[in-house]
Amino acid sequence: MKELDFINIIKQQIGSSYIGDDCAYLKELGIVISQDSLVENIHFKRVWATPFQLGYKSIAVNISDILASGAKPAYVTVALSLPNNIDGKFVEEFYKGAKTALHGAEIIGGDITGSERIFISVTAIGITAGRCISSRSSAKPGYKIITRGKYGLSSAGLNELILGGENKDLIRAHLEPELDEEFSRDISKHITQNYAMMDTSDGLADALFKIAEASGVSIECNEIDGMFGAEDYHLVAAVPQEFDSGLDGVYTVGEVYEKRDFVLKINSRKYNRYDELNLYNHFEKGENNV
Amino acid sequence: MKELDFINIIKQQIGSSYIGDDCAYLKELGIVISQDSLVENIHFKRVWATPFQLGYKSIAVNISDILASGAKPAYVTVALSLPNNIDGKFVEEFYKGAKTALHGAEIIGGDITGSERIFISVTAIGITAGRCISSRSSAKPGYKIITRGKYGLSSAGLNELILGGENKDLIRAHLEPELDEEFSRDISKHITQNYAMMDTSDGLADALFKIAEASGVSIECNEIDGMFGAEDYHLVAAVPQEFDSGLDGVYTVGEVYEKRDFVLKINSRKYNRYDELNLYNHFEKGENNV
Repeated sequence: MKELDFINIIKQQIGSSYIGDDCAYLKELGIVISQDSLVENIHFKRVWATPFQLGYKSIAVNISDILASGAKPAYVTVALSLPNNIDGKFVEEFYKGAKTALHGAEIIGGDITGSERIFISVTAIGITAGRCISSRSSAKPGYKIITRGKYGLSSAGLNELILGGENKDLIRAHLEPELDEEFSRDISKHITQNYAMMDTSDGLADALFKIAEASGVSIECNEIDGMFGAEDYHLVAAVPQEFDSGLDGVYTVGEVYEKRDFVLKINSRKYNRYDELNLYNHFEKGENNV
Repeated sequence: MKELDFINIIKQQIGSSYIGDDCAYLKELGIVISQDSLVENIHFKRVWATPFQLGYKSIAVNISDILASGAKPAYVTVALSLPNNIDGKFVEEFYKGAKTALHGAEIIGGDITGSERIFISVTAIGITAGRCISSRSSAKPGYKIITRGKYGLSSAGLNELILGGENKDLIRAHLEPELDEEFSRDISKHITQNYAMMDTSDGLADALFKIAEASGVSIECNEIDGMFGAEDYHLVAAVPQEFDSGLDGVYTVGEVYEKRDFVLKINSRKYNRYDELNLYNHFEKGENNV
């Protein structure tokens, strides 16, 4: 069974209007909230990542969701489940790494329990005051697609780890991805119209497909290196043509159109179904072939 | 290594003023937040609990923390990590059970990933408007200790499961513990002074010890059946003598004194160290002896 099938069952069960973006936006409270987990042997292997790096990445993947919403990272809770052969040094290093990924947020609590494998689940809260909050479904015909950063380094780093390579820069891009807080803040503080923004945690192609689908539009873009690779944690946004970020390094990769005969078009290749993208899917990986 | 040792390392690392209660109280936002995890083979066995019951309990243990703070349950996020032999029916039943434990809260999002064992981590948010929020450290000399409900049913239910017994009421007390929203609301809406309140998820004796220690006072109480057993999820509070709950079934189990030569005294037995209580500790349980 695929992750998207499960999500559809969950949507059906809870019928919440908040489901759909990586963060839930609680207007009443002026916050966005996101929860993401990292599981040993699914998302990481203990031999590949130091406890410091695990701590960094656990926080980073959640702060990334807050940045994708446009909100200001504010609070984090951490639930750790650890096998009983883990020592205090692990926990200390984990938290040292966690602290370096906070982007201004504060760790305010959590939970620690036993387990057979390491399981980390982090919840992050962002404050929305003074920011325009993004939604996947807010891409409009005529908008341009902008992003920043080089794609594919993280997946190349994962390859290094799998194949036993030693390119430290690539491995670091995978284990300690940098987040683009500046890009998030620049857009959410200055934009004057609704817009779509996502992180590229599952790849740039994935994000563009999801934005186009949720917005009921078509997105056409140029192929760029590494756009199918996951976990770069850059940001990509669909914004009005006239929006000028003024930041160095921001580039346009595509454009939004009224719905055509494709959801996403990359060069001449048209995609209409998500599974045509052939992206990584956790539920196709069993415990034996990870 | 013991859970409390890990918590001390974490406190040292993050130095947050929010750590200490089961919920973090974010006054700026008018909310409390709590995150707790349930791990397969540590907190539950798949053969003992139905998916519905798992869903119920995952939400209940978190809503219980919100109720212990005195806040109103409002929002919940759910992170599920599931082995790839789990089917859609499991997810559907899990969420059906989850919905029955919400006590007015709404499920607003979460995350679903693969894993080798079932991991469930839930974050709950409560709203504090119109409520007086409790703190473990707010028990004062002269206060009385009040609670409601019968203790020991949940641990007896766990025993039934372990020994293959079939007492359905006891098993249900363990797998689907009822929460006392009324007790929480009654106190937090009517009390006019600071007070301490906890749930008895780790046992009544545990809660009293932690309240006394955090408040720098001594608590003396009468022994009652089942007070060392965990997971009853009743509430216990230290409140001014003159506070009159008016609810049926509320009874006084003890009293708070200026610090004496014990933290907790049950009948004539004095406890000064937490480990003298001989309570359940997750980190003493390995994956082989669960």
